[in-house]
Amino acid sequence: MSDIVVAGIGQTAVGEHWERSLRELAHFSLEAAIRDAGGMRPEALYVGNMLAPALSHQTQLGALIADFSGLRGIEAMTVEAAGASGGAALRQAYLALASGLVSVAAVIGVEKMTDQVGPGVEAAVAAAADSDWEAAQGLTQTGLAALLMRRYMHEHGVQQTDFAGFSVNAHANAKTNPNAMFRNTLKPEAFASAPMVAEPVNMFDTAPEGDGAAALVLTRADLLPADFPHIPVRISASSLATDALAVHDRKDLLTLSAARISARRAYEQAGLGSDEMDLFELHDGYTVLAALSLEAAGFAERGHGWKLARDGQISLKGNIPISTFGGLKARGNPGGATGIYQAVEVTIQLRGQAGSNQVESARRGMIQCLGGSGATAVTHIMERVE
Amino acid sequence: MSDIVVAGIGQTAVGEHWERSLRELAHFSLEAAIRDAGGMRPEALYVGNMLAPALSHQTQLGALIADFSGLRGIEAMTVEAAGASGGAALRQAYLALASGLVSVAAVIGVEKMTDQVGPGVEAAVAAAADSDWEAAQGLTQTGLAALLMRRYMHEHGVQQTDFAGFSVNAHANAKTNPNAMFRNTLKPEAFASAPMVAEPVNMFDTAPEGDGAAALVLTRADLLPADFPHIPVRISASSLATDALAVHDRKDLLTLSAARISARRAYEQAGLGSDEMDLFELHDGYTVLAALSLEAAGFAERGHGWKLARDGQISLKGNIPISTFGGLKARGNPGGATGIYQAVEVTIQLRGQAGSNQVESARRGMIQCLGGSGATAVTHIMERVE
Repeated sequence: MSDIVVAGIGQTAVGEHWERSLRELAHFSLEAAIRDAGGMRPEALYVGNMLAPALSHQTQLGALIADFSGLRGIEAMTVEAAGASGGAALRQAYLALASGLVSVAAVIGVEKMTDQVGPGVEAAVAAAADSDWEAAQGLTQTGLAALLMRRYMHEHGVQQTDFAGFSVNAHANAKTNPNAMFRNTLKPEAFASAPMVAEPVNMFDTAPEGDGAAALVLTRADLLPADFPHIPVRISASSLATDALAVHDRKDLLTLSAARISARRAYEQAGLGSDEMDLFELHDGYTVLAALSLEAAGFAERGHGWKLARDGQISLKGNIPISTFGGLKARGNPGGATGIYQAVEVTIQLRGQAGSNQVESARRGMIQCLGGSGATAVTHIMERVE
Repeated sequence: MSDIVVAGIGQTAVGEHWERSLRELAHFSLEAAIRDAGGMRPEALYVGNMLAPALSHQTQLGALIADFSGLRGIEAMTVEAAGASGGAALRQAYLALASGLVSVAAVIGVEKMTDQVGPGVEAAVAAAADSDWEAAQGLTQTGLAALLMRRYMHEHGVQQTDFAGFSVNAHANAKTNPNAMFRNTLKPEAFASAPMVAEPVNMFDTAPEGDGAAALVLTRADLLPADFPHIPVRISASSLATDALAVHDRKDLLTLSAARISARRAYEQAGLGSDEMDLFELHDGYTVLAALSLEAAGFAERGHGWKLARDGQISLKGNIPISTFGGLKARGNPGGATGIYQAVEVTIQLRGQAGSNQVESARRGMIQCLGGSGATAVTHIMERVE
């Protein structure tokens, strides 16, 4: 099988786009990706989205976005796995290309979370938890993260402020990302005095919800034109795994087992280890999830993920840079779109076009997105084609 | 590439399952399909569903259903394309198997439409239309079908009662289907005097919404055990196409262009023509869609689809039997699950296990499901392996 490569990328800024509808955000990112790919026309479109049915009273986004973007008629559908929707859509595009039955595929992650119809955003997002056993009892995603964080602090003997490094790093990296939602510096003192949202999760442990869309055009390496203007980036592993949806059903609250399985399979497929990754775009929707993700993916032992933040190892110049354009925390968290933002950002890094955000000599990057509190995990490994 | 075959099938009855939750319905059908496949364990699960986010306040069904069905950890996600969600999920499973990266895949279509939380069912279903330009103006799916039917009557000079044959046939076939929602005879006189829902769509032009789940276990032919107990059924074509979501954006209201493109591609892939199909499970959510589907798939000329019903050609002994177990009209219409019900029913026909519903010597069947008013169309051709 020929390598599957990123031909084009596109993204909107993440923020409160009150003047742009869901279809417009999607179109903007898709058009940019097609332009970046030299006009390559997708045959199929995979849309990662979790909230449009609840917040925009809209299903069937595939047909809607394909048509609105001038691609009426092509194969198109929505792929949903809560916050991992973008990653799941990328996984489906990867499989479609790997089958040989699709030659050029587009993947969009899009979410419209502000200025929309329907119930409150928190309620809609809570549908990613187990509705019968968690959400119906009043648990929100933030409440679930608070339970995990409290347990982490208890088992591993750490303080709430020990998580500050994740958010401080994210804000530092977002500063020079024009598409980031929050480009201000976050000082540890500000983190320490931030109001609680759901104790011990404070305002700066959580990522801000925002509108946004990001897109990829993917194809096989042998189909790239001779004058392809970018350094190709290949997807050398793609893997999706699941876990119990309800957190109380898991064997160990502090093991993201879907993330662990998914990362392990990705390493196997790529023939690489965690120590060979130059950066890792993980799901830092909550600081505790960042710590747990680093542990699940093998960058730290159980209970030690938080130390990578304390010791500066997650910065652009650290051992394993994360959230290199701000992550969910500061670039912003547009729900089901985040997985595609991650893929776009890693592509920029591997092309060497990240400017002030560049991870030096980045050749390999891993991306992982999580649904809900980690019930779905999707991992991709991307490599610069030398 | 080795043939992709149906190893196992399962279904619940369609109806008002007030005592069963969405996860229980899904589990029941998946367990039955795995049992039917001789216990073959799926590595991946594709869930076709359109309404859970709105009506059950639940996203991330992949992880939920995999875990609840004893398959914790496997790859799992939701695929959504409104009423074509089941077909789109089947398409994704097909591509995953075709890639060679997945060896055994399960596909579930599941919908819980009665006794649920959230807004009314009609409002939730209307999200399949263009929210900004159709649904927000008050147009429901039934309203859209009424516009299409009125146009069909006007352009082709037919009467409302000329559509009766579709519903009469559906009820006749549902009589001996224990999983059907309505097993009563429908007489043409009853059709003629039925109350209007949205003129000219009357109560018997529309299909009843119901709860239900159907499942398939799919694998490659070379992976079937030597003692496989069923006649294998292979999927010889798989195709998905789209059209403008808003009906007013289409070039011709009376051409289901997504259905036409999708059917044409399926015929090409299978190397077969419409005259070689022994049955056709189509999307008879409204009688006018049945007529338009027959035309789009090449079984009738433009404007002549309704005549196949009038002339009895769609009955079990007719030229092109449709709705052989009752179709959406009488088996019931569990939204995004219908595409998998169709695949299960065609498998039963091709295995020769349809009893009183058997289409004699059925060797090839086509299934096609539609999203909304035809903005998404998914076509599969299935063949009995001799």
